Amino acid sequence: MKIPRVHVCYSPELYSAYAEDKHVVVVIDVLRATTAICVALDSGAERVIPVVDVTVARDYLGKGYIVGAERSGDIVEGFEYGNSPSEYRGDHVKDKTIVLTTSNGTYAIAAAQEAEAVAMGAFINLDAVVNWLCEHIDKEVILLCAGWKRKFNMEDTLFAGAVIERLKEMDMIKELTDSGIAALHLYRLAKEDLYGFLEDSSHRRRLRKLDITEDVMFCLSLNKTDVVPILTPDGIIKL
Amino acid sequence: MKIPRVHVCYSPELYSAYAEDKHVVVVIDVLRATTAICVALDSGAERVIPVVDVTVARDYLGKGYIVGAERSGDIVEGFEYGNSPSEYRGDHVKDKTIVLTTSNGTYAIAAAQEAEAVAMGAFINLDAVVNWLCEHIDKEVILLCAGWKRKFNMEDTLFAGAVIERLKEMDMIKELTDSGIAALHLYRLAKEDLYGFLEDSSHRRRLRKLDITEDVMFCLSLNKTDVVPILTPDGIIKL
Repeated sequence: MKIPRVHVCYSPELYSAYAEDKHVVVVIDVLRATTAICVALDSGAERVIPVVDVTVARDYLGKGYIVGAERSGDIVEGFEYGNSPSEYRGDHVKDKTIVLTTSNGTYAIAAAQEAEAVAMGAFINLDAVVNWLCEHIDKEVILLCAGWKRKFNMEDTLFAGAVIERLKEMDMIKELTDSGIAALHLYRLAKEDLYGFLEDSSHRRRLRKLDITEDVMFCLSLNKTDVVPILTPDGIIKL
Repeated sequence: MKIPRVHVCYSPELYSAYAEDKHVVVVIDVLRATTAICVALDSGAERVIPVVDVTVARDYLGKGYIVGAERSGDIVEGFEYGNSPSEYRGDHVKDKTIVLTTSNGTYAIAAAQEAEAVAMGAFINLDAVVNWLCEHIDKEVILLCAGWKRKFNMEDTLFAGAVIERLKEMDMIKELTDSGIAALHLYRLAKEDLYGFLEDSSHRRRLRKLDITEDVMFCLSLNKTDVVPILTPDGIIKL
């Protein structure tokens, strides 16, 4: 048995165009929301509540939650945490509920919330996500790139391509749509040096201004955790 | 002087995300609307009126217009013409007004109608479109792929990549966004054998069912005309 069809959706705005049949979704925001969510759950956080609006996130402040809010790469004023994975690594998140709003990632999660199942994917949990997909093999797969402010971005595309390469190696894909073919080609061009390939991309240039090279290197490293963060009505939890 | 920024927009649904600054647009529906429009104007048609709805197209029937209507690759019932370039080649279109509605192309044209300037691009007028862009060098460029039913498709992406490769060879681009970098990479992989590269794509598989190989071969041939179809309030005319 094979996955009937694998799509890559390059923006949350296009999600409804791809969500015609029963499907499972991997939300991808490599730099940095889905990477941070993996790290938080790997560090023992109980759950992550994704919220779209900063005002909603603000309501959680001072009530025992760890609340992160990021816009355009920076921590929003009045918040202690942003979307850097490094902020969610350590004992301070253990057994805690984290509330998170980010520019792109939490918006993409909201777009996909009606799907049959939704996982968070990042290079640091690549193989774990691929294995999770293999357990949902009767449904179409949408690899949903959070992108950058509704636009296409390269790093999420490359991760989608990495997932597809592994699924193809296992001969698990019946049909790969054009968007999936494109992501696979791009990943094959990039995979020997993801960081170098992304050097040219506009998102990387933007992040370079924020001086987060170490963060980006971590976000591009493979299989640091076997956590698969899953969306539930109570937030995102470890499978 | 260089073009300040070149984007590729992979679906008409994302157009508003890219249309932030003053910009010019190339609408791309290689298979087959923008190719057909080039052929019609090259054959002496006076103009092409693009309409989104089949019902609007129907109102033009029996009034001296050539009316084409295509949905999912087929001619719509009740119409004599579809979106095949071969239907718009010859003396029968000379000095005529053509009314055209297609699945994707005319929808993309409608999305872009407020831009500073809008041209139609296809492999058959590639160099002419590149030259036209060089005359609008102070504006951002959006290469707008019509895609397939709001989704990413490969052939329009490859044409966008071809435009970008030529602009880069002339050192005319100041900033290429991630979507443009992706299109350029894909075109470079494909350009020695566009038809072969597209063999795998889902759109090609769909078109193969329609038995239009000859049409597709023509649509993938370069620089058959120097016509640049331009959108005006009165329809699409030859520049």
